[in-house]
Amino acid sequence: MPRFTNMEGMNFMDAPSQDKKPDVGEELGSCPIPIHSQSNILLGHGSGGKLSADLIRDVFLSTFKNLFLDKLNDSAILPYKGGELAFTTDSFVVDPVFFPGGNIGSLAIHGTVNDLAVSGARPLFVSAAYILEEGFPLESLKTIVASMQQACEESRVTLVTGDTKVVDKGKCDSIFITTSGIGVVEKDHTISVDQARPGDKIIISGTIGNHGIAIMSVRAGIDFETGLKSDSASLVTPIREILEVSSNIHCLRDPTRGGLSSTLNEIAQASKVGIELEETSIPILDQVRGACELLGLDPLCVANEGKFVAVVAEQDADNVLRQLRKNPLGHEAAIIGEVVEDHPEMVLMRSPIGGKRVVQMLQGEQLPRIC
Amino acid sequence: MPRFTNMEGMNFMDAPSQDKKPDVGEELGSCPIPIHSQSNILLGHGSGGKLSADLIRDVFLSTFKNLFLDKLNDSAILPYKGGELAFTTDSFVVDPVFFPGGNIGSLAIHGTVNDLAVSGARPLFVSAAYILEEGFPLESLKTIVASMQQACEESRVTLVTGDTKVVDKGKCDSIFITTSGIGVVEKDHTISVDQARPGDKIIISGTIGNHGIAIMSVRAGIDFETGLKSDSASLVTPIREILEVSSNIHCLRDPTRGGLSSTLNEIAQASKVGIELEETSIPILDQVRGACELLGLDPLCVANEGKFVAVVAEQDADNVLRQLRKNPLGHEAAIIGEVVEDHPEMVLMRSPIGGKRVVQMLQGEQLPRIC
Repeated sequence: MPRFTNMEGMNFMDAPSQDKKPDVGEELGSCPIPIHSQSNILLGHGSGGKLSADLIRDVFLSTFKNLFLDKLNDSAILPYKGGELAFTTDSFVVDPVFFPGGNIGSLAIHGTVNDLAVSGARPLFVSAAYILEEGFPLESLKTIVASMQQACEESRVTLVTGDTKVVDKGKCDSIFITTSGIGVVEKDHTISVDQARPGDKIIISGTIGNHGIAIMSVRAGIDFETGLKSDSASLVTPIREILEVSSNIHCLRDPTRGGLSSTLNEIAQASKVGIELEETSIPILDQVRGACELLGLDPLCVANEGKFVAVVAEQDADNVLRQLRKNPLGHEAAIIGEVVEDHPEMVLMRSPIGGKRVVQMLQGEQLPRIC
Repeated sequence: MPRFTNMEGMNFMDAPSQDKKPDVGEELGSCPIPIHSQSNILLGHGSGGKLSADLIRDVFLSTFKNLFLDKLNDSAILPYKGGELAFTTDSFVVDPVFFPGGNIGSLAIHGTVNDLAVSGARPLFVSAAYILEEGFPLESLKTIVASMQQACEESRVTLVTGDTKVVDKGKCDSIFITTSGIGVVEKDHTISVDQARPGDKIIISGTIGNHGIAIMSVRAGIDFETGLKSDSASLVTPIREILEVSSNIHCLRDPTRGGLSSTLNEIAQASKVGIELEETSIPILDQVRGACELLGLDPLCVANEGKFVAVVAEQDADNVLRQLRKNPLGHEAAIIGEVVEDHPEMVLMRSPIGGKRVVQMLQGEQLPRIC
């Protein structure tokens, strides 16, 4: 998802970059006290979590301020000829470029069509801009381009324009791809991050954390003996199918960077509502759970690339869930919680033994270059 | 301009990348014989010249083949609701990020709105995707973003969506920006690279080579004592003004990477016509001419970021030129040649003493990371 988002700040801590002067508090090393200013870009600014939100609010929104950007949905919804166009963009810098379940090319197409789909739009056209490192193998490029075309066909979009730049060896890492997409909003849905209402049910379309753990396992050379694959997939069809059975889907969002916790916090904050989750109802593969325990990661903060969250009016929730489970990409879909009036802008999770804990946005950076 | 272009091949020579195996003929060192295959990406693949064209034809066009992409104009022209949308994308990797006359941010907006404008479209919306290197100064980012907003205001476009990724220090060079744009085609113009007809006049909107030489002078630390600035500018207004006075503008194109020579060769090849230039009529600043002589560069191959080529029916050429010269960005506009039936797909230039030489597309790479 595009990360011009509008989350409010709490404290954070992140590794300072090598060549910057220390900021206030930084000389204290790893002590997790708040740092309220930074003079250089940190890895956490690209995390999709708290630092990303700060950067977007402080640098981009304050300069580019306009009605469309301020909405901060996955796509901008633009008036055109009496209808509405959806427009979105994302850069992909995933490391490694090839991973179990996909590569940077398929990921780039899926990411962009999914951002259009969760905006309630039918994706039509995409663009691709490549930044290539001198020396990158042509055969690898051909493989990536072929999987982009396949992903386009699966999502029924056409890649209509593109660009290629090459930088000297050592000035980028293999290949970066930026995709943009245009879609058309066909129905009069008001699907937006600020539309969640108390009583709504929270549905997740499948197991969480697969993408992040699959990438990490390759990158770190860790073999979890799981055969775990990224969930990178086009969500165009399952989303179209649920929009056909319900006119009461209030929010749709793909919990990519920053994971489920960041997405739910964004919804809670934009809609000014509380969210309560049932820990036991959140679908997580055993391999993902095990890897997260081993690595000290919270699966709710791990990235997904083929999942979406739907916030649905109570009366339609069962119907939407039933429809979603008919699609292979939604077999493990589940209702994982509900929207409440209490504790607005805060996400709480009930544990199996009845306790509640606060689910925060991702702080700092967990897995750099996950997408 | 987006560089998914369709030029046919001739011979080329380019520096092999450090870690690739030698291709056929490469072991012959610098002997300029043809090399017909490469297994790795070379800097020249991003030149906007011959190697770029090969890459686009062999990798992108052959995979993504579709009606819109095949047209190979600066923007894709897409049918929508009985009208037409223009859609374009470009990545910017210019080095240095700040240069006389602009920075990577203003350049990124100008590049994208110009690609829409030369397609005969009115630019409406742009997106921006940032890839930032860990440690990049926040103040520099703020300066860049502010000049993007200023460039948007000058071109009357709105930046409606964006994305930010951060990569580890050393994995990219400071900042890369990819902008995409949507415009609307308001008149029933058929402006396309394949529309040049014998008898048409070739107009250039001003002096050539300013951008490339300005960048090179900063990068190489060479002071030409010229105060030369990049010509980076929005061409939206001067193009709108000439479209208002003539319905017989057949091609419009901005000669960015690859310079005037590549643009004219693209037009000649796509339209299957010959082009003849008058060397003395091509406007070039003395400083640019001097720097080119010193550095052994052909000014016709040097990049521009605020100039366009118009191919105009003979009867309208003087009128278009008069209109163009009224705009500050067109004061030095000139008719520099004409379209001919002879020597199709070839560009010739008449020298002051009456000789003719072939003007080829840029071969290899002249100035990497010029935009």
